[in-house]
Amino acid sequence: MFLTAELITKKRDGKKLSEEEIRFLVSEYTGGSIPDYQMAAFLMAAFIRGLDRRETTFLTRAMLESGRVFDLSSLPAPKIDKHSTGGVGDKVSLVLAPWVASCGVAVPMISGRGLGHTGGTLDKLSAIPGFRTDFSIEQFTEILRGNNFFMAGQTVEIAPADKKIYALRDVTGTVPSIPLITASILSKKLAGGAEAILFDVKVGRGAFMRTPKEAKELAFWLCAVARQFKVKAEAVLTRMDEPLGRFVGNILEVKEALEFLSGRFEADLYHVTEYLAVRMLGLAGIEEKEARRLLSARLLDGSARQHFRELVRLQGGFVGAVENPGLFARAEYQIPVRAPQAGWVWSLDAREVGLLAIELGAGRKTVQDKIDYTVGFEFLKKTGAQVEKEETVAFVHSNSTVTGREVAMELGQLYDIRREKKKAPGLIIKS
Amino acid sequence: MFLTAELITKKRDGKKLSEEEIRFLVSEYTGGSIPDYQMAAFLMAAFIRGLDRRETTFLTRAMLESGRVFDLSSLPAPKIDKHSTGGVGDKVSLVLAPWVASCGVAVPMISGRGLGHTGGTLDKLSAIPGFRTDFSIEQFTEILRGNNFFMAGQTVEIAPADKKIYALRDVTGTVPSIPLITASILSKKLAGGAEAILFDVKVGRGAFMRTPKEAKELAFWLCAVARQFKVKAEAVLTRMDEPLGRFVGNILEVKEALEFLSGRFEADLYHVTEYLAVRMLGLAGIEEKEARRLLSARLLDGSARQHFRELVRLQGGFVGAVENPGLFARAEYQIPVRAPQAGWVWSLDAREVGLLAIELGAGRKTVQDKIDYTVGFEFLKKTGAQVEKEETVAFVHSNSTVTGREVAMELGQLYDIRREKKKAPGLIIKS
Repeated sequence: MFLTAELITKKRDGKKLSEEEIRFLVSEYTGGSIPDYQMAAFLMAAFIRGLDRRETTFLTRAMLESGRVFDLSSLPAPKIDKHSTGGVGDKVSLVLAPWVASCGVAVPMISGRGLGHTGGTLDKLSAIPGFRTDFSIEQFTEILRGNNFFMAGQTVEIAPADKKIYALRDVTGTVPSIPLITASILSKKLAGGAEAILFDVKVGRGAFMRTPKEAKELAFWLCAVARQFKVKAEAVLTRMDEPLGRFVGNILEVKEALEFLSGRFEADLYHVTEYLAVRMLGLAGIEEKEARRLLSARLLDGSARQHFRELVRLQGGFVGAVENPGLFARAEYQIPVRAPQAGWVWSLDAREVGLLAIELGAGRKTVQDKIDYTVGFEFLKKTGAQVEKEETVAFVHSNSTVTGREVAMELGQLYDIRREKKKAPGLIIKS
Repeated sequence: MFLTAELITKKRDGKKLSEEEIRFLVSEYTGGSIPDYQMAAFLMAAFIRGLDRRETTFLTRAMLESGRVFDLSSLPAPKIDKHSTGGVGDKVSLVLAPWVASCGVAVPMISGRGLGHTGGTLDKLSAIPGFRTDFSIEQFTEILRGNNFFMAGQTVEIAPADKKIYALRDVTGTVPSIPLITASILSKKLAGGAEAILFDVKVGRGAFMRTPKEAKELAFWLCAVARQFKVKAEAVLTRMDEPLGRFVGNILEVKEALEFLSGRFEADLYHVTEYLAVRMLGLAGIEEKEARRLLSARLLDGSARQHFRELVRLQGGFVGAVENPGLFARAEYQIPVRAPQAGWVWSLDAREVGLLAIELGAGRKTVQDKIDYTVGFEFLKKTGAQVEKEETVAFVHSNSTVTGREVAMELGQLYDIRREKKKAPGLIIKS
């Protein structure tokens, strides 16, 4: 037993905490013996004074062990997970997981909800009527056994300490700390039982890490701490300056993912997704050339799409809409956004797009908010495209003409259009 | 209106807050709209990043204005208060206030309870049966008008914000911060309506400020911020390495104060108290020689003691015991402490003595603890005294022979006795 105030004081003065001390803080806080205000003071001290890699490993382990952990050792297939640090229009997981699963690699994926201006895989999945992400560990294991992947949320069984601590960080100004982010991500991801994890660390205006320097640091921490748990870990830095793919918005992104799995895709989304898929297969021991061949074959023969259909069935979702996306609900109005002038699109700020999407109802401002799954954006033109004056560059999908028109006007202003030519940027920054 | 999380973030990143921002934090926290955990995160950020003098002034003002303030402008006498940062055996206020009041200077004194290892004036006063420190501002003003001084606690009317914030700091490792200490002390002291305040900043092993450097810094902040409120402020640094005077313990110290007011005192206590009294009279415009003459006269003619007697009567205490201290309750056992060897006393650690006094029941370990007003210590020998082996150097006053004997043994070990000669130290460090 420790005195909580003394542990707070120790970190306040920049000293290091032992594994026992960190475990005490986490377990007593999760159990309710340490009140929110003491944890808040500790988190602020940890934010400012920092945690070193050992302390971050201790924190990760304590949060991980606050819940149950998948034991997938009886499954013969290699088990590989992927984690994205979050972006706008980032529906990569929806395509990547069934695609990789269709190549014979098991993907036990634990995903999160939208954070700040970014969307969340869990919210997108919830846009499929009936789809559930809260099964027990045993049920998810069965789903994995039957279809080679599952897509789970952070259920009550998984890292409850992280859930409680994250909620507190969110309201006490202690979110953007690399050690705290690392421990939070890993405590969930490690619970999934994967033997390797690929981190997609987003960089740029629409990412939480604005610069490659910050992103590299986070990537380094994620890999270094993950390896302490005997998990293979690799990281990729990808650009998140403008929305990824053609759509932003929950149902719209699910439909885009289904289109992808049927063989029709935007170049930027394909490029990032295929790159990550090759890397995941690489972690499973499949060399690059063979990986590309396999991925191409599974996409063309429809098995990737079939795995997604089966996932929806196994997790209780409306399979009819997967087979016929026209059955998905649709926003009442599609309001065109027109180019204010002729020229080339130089940028389309993903962060601002994300905030506008929330304004429209596609995300939450507070935890209590309800999401309107049908609303969002379709981008016909993105960075590098040439446009005529008054050409339609995007559509706003909205259920209110008033809000829709306001948002459409603001979206138009996010288009930075200039006379000089501009090329579309590359997306893979560092691997 | 501000977003609390944004103000926390601002301070977390080392930025300065405006008066409106600090006022918002204090008033919304006191009113209950800002929860403890957000205030705790803010206090930790303020602790580590610091508050500058302007911010500390804002914080002081916001806490001061959370409650009512004495308006003593209709009283003709100069109004001077004194504040001690706390020590062991520090019964100076009990003597100083009636003494200075008897010289025609009004002393509106707001005191606190024991903190950590130190004793509190309020606890000592509460040892007088019936004595109340929770009158209204109007009642205290009447008491002041009738007898030239009052001794009040931090009632519900006075700086409620400080009370709530202090309780939170106590459990979140955010106490020893000079800006936060300054604002806490001043928000209470300034409420008393004094036009000048003398700060007795204790330095040494038994003080919160261990070194003259720290003490000077606190003294400087207290005076600088007090002056922002158009209050004259001076500070004195006095040594607190060993207990002050002959007794430690609540009733024992009240009796020692009564003895003093009857003209019998220990040299160290007299030296500090008279020095502070001269300085308080100085703040009231009385020059030093005249001040000494006046103080001596008022002590000898019994008016100082008479003022104390009248205070006890006006604040509801048992006057009989003041007139005949034999009527005060007394601990059942007086257990002698003997010198382990012959030589000179080199030191007697005041902090350890304070902690032993709490062990004995003279102070609180937690807010809920009840104090035994009768228990404590009498010191026959202190630093600089020559002792024989087995000579009685102190008595433990206890109501349990078991605890009393244990404490007596530990107290004996606190006496650092050596063969070499040692002189008693001076007490005034800097003025």
